Amino acid sequence: MTNQHSSGYDRTPVSVIGLGPMGAALAAAFLDHGHPTTVWNRSPQKADDLVAKGAHRASTVIEAVSAGPMIIVCVKDYETMHEILGAAGDTLNGRVLVNLNSGTPSQARAAVGWATERGAGYLDGAIMVPPPLVGHPGSVFLYSGSPGVFDQHRQTLASVGDPRYLGSDPSLAVLYNAALLDMMYATMNGFLHATALVGSANVSAVEFAEHALGWFMPTVVDSVLAEQAPELDKGNYPGDLGTLEMNLNALEHITQASVEQGVHSDQPRLMKEIAERAITDGYGGKNYLAVFEIFKQATREPPT
Amino acid sequence: MTNQHSSGYDRTPVSVIGLGPMGAALAAAFLDHGHPTTVWNRSPQKADDLVAKGAHRASTVIEAVSAGPMIIVCVKDYETMHEILGAAGDTLNGRVLVNLNSGTPSQARAAVGWATERGAGYLDGAIMVPPPLVGHPGSVFLYSGSPGVFDQHRQTLASVGDPRYLGSDPSLAVLYNAALLDMMYATMNGFLHATALVGSANVSAVEFAEHALGWFMPTVVDSVLAEQAPELDKGNYPGDLGTLEMNLNALEHITQASVEQGVHSDQPRLMKEIAERAITDGYGGKNYLAVFEIFKQATREPPT
Ligand SMILES: [Ca+2]
Ligand SMILES: [Ca+2]
Repeated sequence: MTNQHSSGYDRTPVSVIGLGPMGAALAAAFLDHGHPTTVWNRSPQKADDLVAKGAHRASTVIEAVSAGPMIIVCVKDYETMHEILGAAGDTLNGRVLVNLNSGTPSQARAAVGWATERGAGYLDGAIMVPPPLVGHPGSVFLYSGSPGVFDQHRQTLASVGDPRYLGSDPSLAVLYNAALLDMMYATMNGFLHATALVGSANVSAVEFAEHALGWFMPTVVDSVLAEQAPELDKGNYPGDLGTLEMNLNALEHITQASVEQGVHSDQPRLMKEIAERAITDGYGGKNYLAVFEIFKQATREPPT
Repeated sequence: MTNQHSSGYDRTPVSVIGLGPMGAALAAAFLDHGHPTTVWNRSPQKADDLVAKGAHRASTVIEAVSAGPMIIVCVKDYETMHEILGAAGDTLNGRVLVNLNSGTPSQARAAVGWATERGAGYLDGAIMVPPPLVGHPGSVFLYSGSPGVFDQHRQTLASVGDPRYLGSDPSLAVLYNAALLDMMYATMNGFLHATALVGSANVSAVEFAEHALGWFMPTVVDSVLAEQAPELDKGNYPGDLGTLEMNLNALEHITQASVEQGVHSDQPRLMKEIAERAITDGYGGKNYLAVFEIFKQATREPPT
C-alpha cells in the first residue's frame, strides 16, 4: 500500500511537526518518496490519514525529534515553533531543523541563534506552492542558512519539490517569500481593482481578462519590468519617454474614475500619493520606476 | 522626401490637434502612411519637424478643423479640448472627432454630448503604447462610441496602430485605459516594493527579477488570475486551498517585514486593511480573490 517499504531503507528518515494542510502534504510527499516518516501534531487525530499511508505517529515531541536526523517544522508561526520545540530539550542536539513557517526576517535570524544554542543545524525555508502541488518536482521551495546543511540535505528536500538555495543569510527565504507574496498580492489587487472598475460599466471579468492578461500584462508590463531591472540597480530612471509628472496625471484620472464609478478608491489613491511623494523628492522629470526610491525608505509623515 | 505625395490621394486627410510627444507621433505616423496631414498646436513651432516631413501647418483651429473629415485631438485633458475646439464653432458640423486624451468616464460621456450638439461624430480612444511605438501595426489603440463612425474610419485609424473597438458606450475606452493602467501601476508598485524589500538584505533587482519575473509571475500569478476570471464573474471564491484568514496572516508578515527592514510600508498595510475589511464582511473562509467584493464597493470609513 505504501512506497517506503520498497525503497525506504536508503532514504533519510524525516520527522514532520505540524500537520495542517501544508504539513500533511509534506509528510505525504516524504512517504511517497520512500522516506521513513514520523509525524507529530498537537491534535493527534490529524495524523490518522498519514498513519494509514505508513507514517509513524509520535506520541511526544521528543519522540518525533528523536526519530531521525531531520526535523521539518510547519506550524503557524515562529512563536508556536519555539513553544513546541521547547519541550524537546537536548534531543535537538546534532540534528537539523528545517523551518517552513512563514514569519519575518528577524524571527528567522533569531531562530538560528535558538537552534545553534541547542546544537542543531538550521535551514529556513519557504514553500511557494499550495499543498496539492507539494511533492511535484517543479514546485519551488526557497531555502537560506548554512550552505553545508543545505548541501547535505538537498536530496531529501528534493522529495517535496525543487529546492532553491538563496544564500547563507538565514532571513533570505523569509524575505524572498514576503517579497514574492507582496508582489503577488499587489498584482492580484491591481487586476481585481481594475476588474471592479470596468465591471462598473458591466464589462465581465472574463472579457477584461482577455485584454488585461491575454495582451497587456505579458506584452507591456512584465517585459518592461524585466528589461528595467538593471536600471533599478543603477538608480537610473531617464524620463525621455514619459515622466512621473505624466504618470501622476494618469493616477489622478484613475483615482477620479474609481470615485465616479462608485468602486473602491483607496488603492489608486495611495499610488497617487506615492507618486506625489516621489515628485516632492525631486523625481518629477524621471520615469515612473523612480518610485523605487520612495519604497526603499521607511514610511514618513506627509509634508506639512 | 515624404510618402504622402506618392499615395496620399486615396488616403483620408487627417487633422491632428495637439503636438506633444504623442500628438507629434500620431501626425508623423499619418504622414508615413500617406495621409494628407494638417497639424495645429498652441505653440506653432512644435509643428516644424512635421512640416519638414510634409505636414500642413494650420494657423488657426478653424483652419485645422476645416482641412478634412477627421480631427484627431491629443491634448492634456478634456477641459483643454473643450477650450481649444470651442473656437471652431460650426466648422465641426459633419466631421468626426477622435479624442485621444486621457480622462474619466464622465468626461468621455460629456464629450459625446458636446460633439453631438455641434453636429460632429465622436469616438473616444486610448493609446496603449508610448510615442515611439505609434504607427506600428501591433500597437494597440482602444476605441469606444458610435459603431458606425468606427467602421467608417477603421482603416484610417489603422495607420497609427491596431484599432480595437470596445463597444458603443463612449466611456469604455477611458475606463479600460484607466483599468489597464491601474493594473499596470499596481503591478509595477508590487514589483518595486518587493525589490526594495529584498534590497534591504542586499539582493539586487536583477537577482530578484530572475525569481520574481522569470518564474513566479508567469507560472504562479498570471496563470491563476486568467484561470479564476470566470469565478469572479460568478462571485465564487471557494476557500478549500487557502483562506483569506491565511492571506491576512501573510499580509501581516509582509507589513511587519517592511517595517523591520526599514522600507516603505504603506502599500502592504493597505492590502492588509483591505483583507481585514473583507474578513469583517464575512469572507474570511473564502479565498483571496474575495477582496474583489470590497473593490466593487465605494471606499467606506473603517468600523468603529
Ligand atoms: Ca520560513
Ligand atoms: Ca480618451
